[in-house]
Amino acid sequence: MTSAPPRRRKREIFRHPGQVVVAAFGATVLVGTLLLMLPGTRAEGGGADPVTALFTATSAVCVTGLVVVDTETYWTSTGHAIILALVQVGGFGLMTLASLLVLFVSRRLGLRTRLNAAAETKSVGLGDVRQVVRGVLVVTVVVEVAVAVLLTGRLLVQGLPPGRATWLGVFHAVSAFNNAGFSLYSDSLTRYLTDGWILLPVSVAIIVGGLGFPVMLELGRRTHPRRWSLHTRLTVLMTGILLVGGTLFVTASEWTNVDTIGTLDPAQKVLAGFFHAVQPRTAGFNAWDYSEITQETLLGTIILMFVGGGSAGTAGGLKVTTFIILFFVIVAEVRGDPQVVAFDRRIEHRVVRQALTVALLGIGIVTFATMLLTELTDFALADVLFEATSAFSTVGLSTGITPNLNDPAKIVVVVLMFVGRLGPITLVSALALRERPRRYTYPEGAPIIG
Amino acid sequence: MTSAPPRRRKREIFRHPGQVVVAAFGATVLVGTLLLMLPGTRAEGGGADPVTALFTATSAVCVTGLVVVDTETYWTSTGHAIILALVQVGGFGLMTLASLLVLFVSRRLGLRTRLNAAAETKSVGLGDVRQVVRGVLVVTVVVEVAVAVLLTGRLLVQGLPPGRATWLGVFHAVSAFNNAGFSLYSDSLTRYLTDGWILLPVSVAIIVGGLGFPVMLELGRRTHPRRWSLHTRLTVLMTGILLVGGTLFVTASEWTNVDTIGTLDPAQKVLAGFFHAVQPRTAGFNAWDYSEITQETLLGTIILMFVGGGSAGTAGGLKVTTFIILFFVIVAEVRGDPQVVAFDRRIEHRVVRQALTVALLGIGIVTFATMLLTELTDFALADVLFEATSAFSTVGLSTGITPNLNDPAKIVVVVLMFVGRLGPITLVSALALRERPRRYTYPEGAPIIG
Ligand SMILES: [K+]
Ligand SMILES: [K+]
Repeated sequence: MTSAPPRRRKREIFRHPGQVVVAAFGATVLVGTLLLMLPGTRAEGGGADPVTALFTATSAVCVTGLVVVDTETYWTSTGHAIILALVQVGGFGLMTLASLLVLFVSRRLGLRTRLNAAAETKSVGLGDVRQVVRGVLVVTVVVEVAVAVLLTGRLLVQGLPPGRATWLGVFHAVSAFNNAGFSLYSDSLTRYLTDGWILLPVSVAIIVGGLGFPVMLELGRRTHPRRWSLHTRLTVLMTGILLVGGTLFVTASEWTNVDTIGTLDPAQKVLAGFFHAVQPRTAGFNAWDYSEITQETLLGTIILMFVGGGSAGTAGGLKVTTFIILFFVIVAEVRGDPQVVAFDRRIEHRVVRQALTVALLGIGIVTFATMLLTELTDFALADVLFEATSAFSTVGLSTGITPNLNDPAKIVVVVLMFVGRLGPITLVSALALRERPRRYTYPEGAPIIG
Repeated sequence: MTSAPPRRRKREIFRHPGQVVVAAFGATVLVGTLLLMLPGTRAEGGGADPVTALFTATSAVCVTGLVVVDTETYWTSTGHAIILALVQVGGFGLMTLASLLVLFVSRRLGLRTRLNAAAETKSVGLGDVRQVVRGVLVVTVVVEVAVAVLLTGRLLVQGLPPGRATWLGVFHAVSAFNNAGFSLYSDSLTRYLTDGWILLPVSVAIIVGGLGFPVMLELGRRTHPRRWSLHTRLTVLMTGILLVGGTLFVTASEWTNVDTIGTLDPAQKVLAGFFHAVQPRTAGFNAWDYSEITQETLLGTIILMFVGGGSAGTAGGLKVTTFIILFFVIVAEVRGDPQVVAFDRRIEHRVVRQALTVALLGIGIVTFATMLLTELTDFALADVLFEATSAFSTVGLSTGITPNLNDPAKIVVVVLMFVGRLGPITLVSALALRERPRRYTYPEGAPIIG
């Protein structure tokens, strides 16, 4: 009698691993909210009000970076430390749990054996839980320390006192690798717009964190590209395309905009353009004022934010693999191929349907949230869409409207950040475990399309 | 030697039926452009300049309704008659050709026999070309005459002279049934905002035309709903959802907006809301000023425009069946069903991939055009997106920026109207004919999604 309930609970945990992730994140957000409400967190004394604490804790744990108060001046150093801890727990937690979910789901579906045969071992056959946790820990520490050292060195050269330089270096390194976008400067990294020694290490940390753990692991093993798993190939290819294409587009769109980079010399323009092509995927620092960008950059940034980064990493968005799979579906359809093929690997209908579901539900959620926010506020549609996409894809970029939202609108953004962070990964793992046997076959229907 | 070329040409026509449609429409646009450049078409004397003539002819033949000049005052009665003729040729032509393409593609793929077995005969087994042409002609004449009589009667009651009343009645009936949205009033139907005797007949003509010929045919036979084909069920269901949902949303979003319906009584508000829920799918008349609508209505209208109406009719957009199929894919995926099922009919992967391709290419084209237009002009992003969607989905609604576009931007809109009108149908027919046998099977790859 006494041993039955625990056993049932254990079985349920393994039946719905996604729910465990959601519960763990919800609990962390709650703890973070309470911590930020404690006296001593707020610069002008006392603790934060509940809505500000909830918004900031959610933004930190979901590594989004949207803020309703100025991070630099509103919080004390204690507040800053709590935010950084929440960012690290959120980033580390999701990278680990997402990697484990992939492993778990692959095993449960008997995929691992199939994948072994297809030379796909490296991307998901990570061994066991301890190995994943240790691997994520090592990667996190190595990248964060390296970037913190570079940033601190640069700040020391610029004459900052050692203690201040180290704290700024560590904070921004952790914030960058976890794609959190929180900054200790009120205007984010605007003062470093032309400083490659700051912008480039930050960009590298963001890109590495955004590749996702399975890809980092495979790249870390220095496998020859010809032997990369399909997941790594697709992630690296799409990341490269988005970085190069994004840099060209953003730089060209802002080239003559005197409110951003119009007055800089060409090399500085390209550096700033590169930095702001990295941010929407999905770090959220800014070195120019996003309320001053052109309409072209606004649209391009919304698209980059929506696509996001790699799976099972610190980046958000709908993930690069989701979109590249849909691209290969279109290629197959236009060529008339009955199978979808990417790099000599067949993509099953199951995977195509997952990608389609994730993409369409993402579009639906962002559209619905945009509607709610236009209803609750008086901001322009394009700005609201930008902010909703930024929240859902856990980017943190803002044209400046988030601090001016009313409380109901803030709650909408909180939900959006949470759903955006956990939605895609828990959705896919839940979907993957739900596959039911076909009971009977219906006659075919052929509605007219287009 | 002499008989070979014609035979080859004939074979090619049947291999690429979509190209025939594109060539026919291109030729019609060209003829229309030349006609509108003839002396006597323009009110202030002479003919229209080439860009204005090309834009207006494309807008008329593609039944879009966007204008760069004021239809009422810029053209003479001859000009109006040419525009109406182009609308009728364009609407009739596409409805006929699209219905024939469906028939042709089904036969070519051997679908007809399969469909017969599945009781789907009625939606595509229309017999032969003559039957289709005669059917479309009968439906067109019956609806247009009925609506013209109602409108003319109302205008006579209001005291207009018989000749003027008849011409206005005929023009708006033809424009409505063909979902063209051209009006002989500078401010479209704004003066009839509270006049149900005008708004309702126009709405009915738009809805019937937008159902598409296969659905009209089946409804006209008064088949019991339980025996409707899957295509008819999906089209009617989705049309109903969009009309009811659209009316509720638009009415609620404008309820307190004094620049549109805020000052009307509740019944008048609902009438106006219904009328403006019908327009984005995809007629394009307006009885309020679209530059005065709320941001919520702007977004809701963009979505309604993008979805559009029924296949093989006079409506544009990506078509209701495309979206409802994608909805059923998500339902199947979330339920864990290996097959996609709608109303006890299995939807093949082939159809799902077609819907996915049409939707994603549509999103891609509208996004690309929006980027081009923001680059070429200085208008706000949301307004440009509205106008691009309106052009692509052949709606014709405008926040007022189209008349103020520069010539390169006008050409972009011309291309967008043409691609939007012919793209989906020719794309699907081309895709359906391209299916190639599977030559060899690749090993499976399983990238991580989400
Ligand atoms: K972020
Ligand atoms: K139209």
